[in-house]
Amino acid sequence: MPESSSKQEYLVGVDLGGTKILAGVFTSSMKCIGKVKTSTKPLRGPEAVIDRIARCVEDAVDECDLKLEQVRGIGLGAPGAVDSENGKVIFAPNLPDWRDVPLKKQLEKELKVPVFLENDGNICTLGVHSVELEGKPKHMIGVFVGTGIGAGFILDGKLYSGFNKTAAEVGHMVLEVGGPKCGCGNRGCFEALAGRQAIFRKIQTAVKEGQKTVLTESLGPDLTDMRSGDLRKALRRGDKLVERVIEEAAEYIGIGVANLVNLLSPQVVVLGGGVIDALEDEMMAIIVETAHDYALQGTDTDLEIVPSKLGDNAGIYGGAVLARRETK
Amino acid sequence: MPESSSKQEYLVGVDLGGTKILAGVFTSSMKCIGKVKTSTKPLRGPEAVIDRIARCVEDAVDECDLKLEQVRGIGLGAPGAVDSENGKVIFAPNLPDWRDVPLKKQLEKELKVPVFLENDGNICTLGVHSVELEGKPKHMIGVFVGTGIGAGFILDGKLYSGFNKTAAEVGHMVLEVGGPKCGCGNRGCFEALAGRQAIFRKIQTAVKEGQKTVLTESLGPDLTDMRSGDLRKALRRGDKLVERVIEEAAEYIGIGVANLVNLLSPQVVVLGGGVIDALEDEMMAIIVETAHDYALQGTDTDLEIVPSKLGDNAGIYGGAVLARRETK
Repeated sequence: MPESSSKQEYLVGVDLGGTKILAGVFTSSMKCIGKVKTSTKPLRGPEAVIDRIARCVEDAVDECDLKLEQVRGIGLGAPGAVDSENGKVIFAPNLPDWRDVPLKKQLEKELKVPVFLENDGNICTLGVHSVELEGKPKHMIGVFVGTGIGAGFILDGKLYSGFNKTAAEVGHMVLEVGGPKCGCGNRGCFEALAGRQAIFRKIQTAVKEGQKTVLTESLGPDLTDMRSGDLRKALRRGDKLVERVIEEAAEYIGIGVANLVNLLSPQVVVLGGGVIDALEDEMMAIIVETAHDYALQGTDTDLEIVPSKLGDNAGIYGGAVLARRETK
Repeated sequence: MPESSSKQEYLVGVDLGGTKILAGVFTSSMKCIGKVKTSTKPLRGPEAVIDRIARCVEDAVDECDLKLEQVRGIGLGAPGAVDSENGKVIFAPNLPDWRDVPLKKQLEKELKVPVFLENDGNICTLGVHSVELEGKPKHMIGVFVGTGIGAGFILDGKLYSGFNKTAAEVGHMVLEVGGPKCGCGNRGCFEALAGRQAIFRKIQTAVKEGQKTVLTESLGPDLTDMRSGDLRKALRRGDKLVERVIEEAAEYIGIGVANLVNLLSPQVVVLGGGVIDALEDEMMAIIVETAHDYALQGTDTDLEIVPSKLGDNAGIYGGAVLARRETK
């Protein structure tokens, strides 16, 4: 059936972040045949960002020598609280002025392709579970450490979202009552202790207090434009300050994972996100050891704690999986 | 059918604790028609405790002028890690020498009635969900604050147990890295901050440091044999030390609840257990306020946080519900 196979057989996954938009084009057997990245420019406001998403999708499809008519559906992961049923972004801390944005409707108007929305932690978890783990584990948790810390829970084989569809907000699980201030207004949240922002802030504070790091050589005394990759380079040069901060963050991530293990008894915990991608070699062993230390006896039997191989692409894979599922 | 209605129409729920055993006899419509309490005497070892459970069940059935032949099934909640499928107590921190105890098999041998086992937090949650909330909420969490802190999760309408069947070990969720030592060997666990033992220890330490409390009048300087009820009486007499410790514990419980709300987005959180039963008036308002403070925006919309009306009977109700479900 040459006609039907050339028509609507492709899927697009989109990862909308506070910094960049990534769109990937997939065959229905989840092979990624092309992707395009663009900056989000969140300060330009929701309308402008939606235009940029649409353009990013068009560019990715064009890059693969395809047309939008050949795309069956688009799955998009957005940061923050997402109303999947109604296709709205309720609010997104890293996207200013995003409140009740009807993202699905507006994108469908621009692209004339069905669009499906999910929270970004959920969509990354869906991607890792379906593609990387081939849907095998019945109970699996994805934890993604980037600017903040997102997550998704596969419980009894399905993405779990709960009563308000907001489940898996692990970034705001309190790990240290009275600890450092978090963007959410509270103190001691997981992401205020171990997210990229928390790691950067600790290093900046230490430098202000007179501690030495090789990072100032390339980034200047204020450490502006620091990236996870800079930390990896500093570690390889034996930087003691960065080493201590990264070890501490890895321990907090291990404790956060142990809390999830004690609560949800997963078979697999997969770690991903920019911080893990950049610092996997330095962090994973500490995370795994700490998690087992804090997991109650019996809860971590045969538990696997592993880094995702999909890296930055977990979101677009998950988007494609969502689009495939919803257009079946 | 008079014969069939007189035969095997009753259910027994048993709550096995580190201090006491409670057995209740129920009609198939979950009306409690009698109950008997006995001490556990855990130091006598598993065999002796199992005999005591059997006798407690026999006494409860006899108290209702019934015979064991009229009991369709017995549901039992045990503290610790329980292998429901194989009817074993894997280990129970508050019951010395309980390791891989085939409780189901031994009780069935003694009583000649089918026995079904569950973790005590799960069974209390099942009781509250089925009987008190009439099975309505699809996503519900039960948190039981006693000597330790137990819990159970109803997710998507079903008791959730996870890969190792150990889910809902909320007592060992870390809330304060580096905090007070817990029985599990780690530091800063929820139950080391807000369980009855933690509350008692804080008061005892304060008294040793020279702080005043009316509790020493009746219990002596070492505060031996302190009970939750003593704290309630002290509060009613305006005891400042007890007030501060109880407020602090209620705040920790609120933060623990908020973590569960952020992670699982339940519709209802029900609080129970000896500490809540005794101090509901003093603690609930603080728990509810703190939980909403720490819940991320959007996660606590229409969320109810309420004390259980079943009190100490949640376990026997849950046991009867389990027995009914398993013998259907």
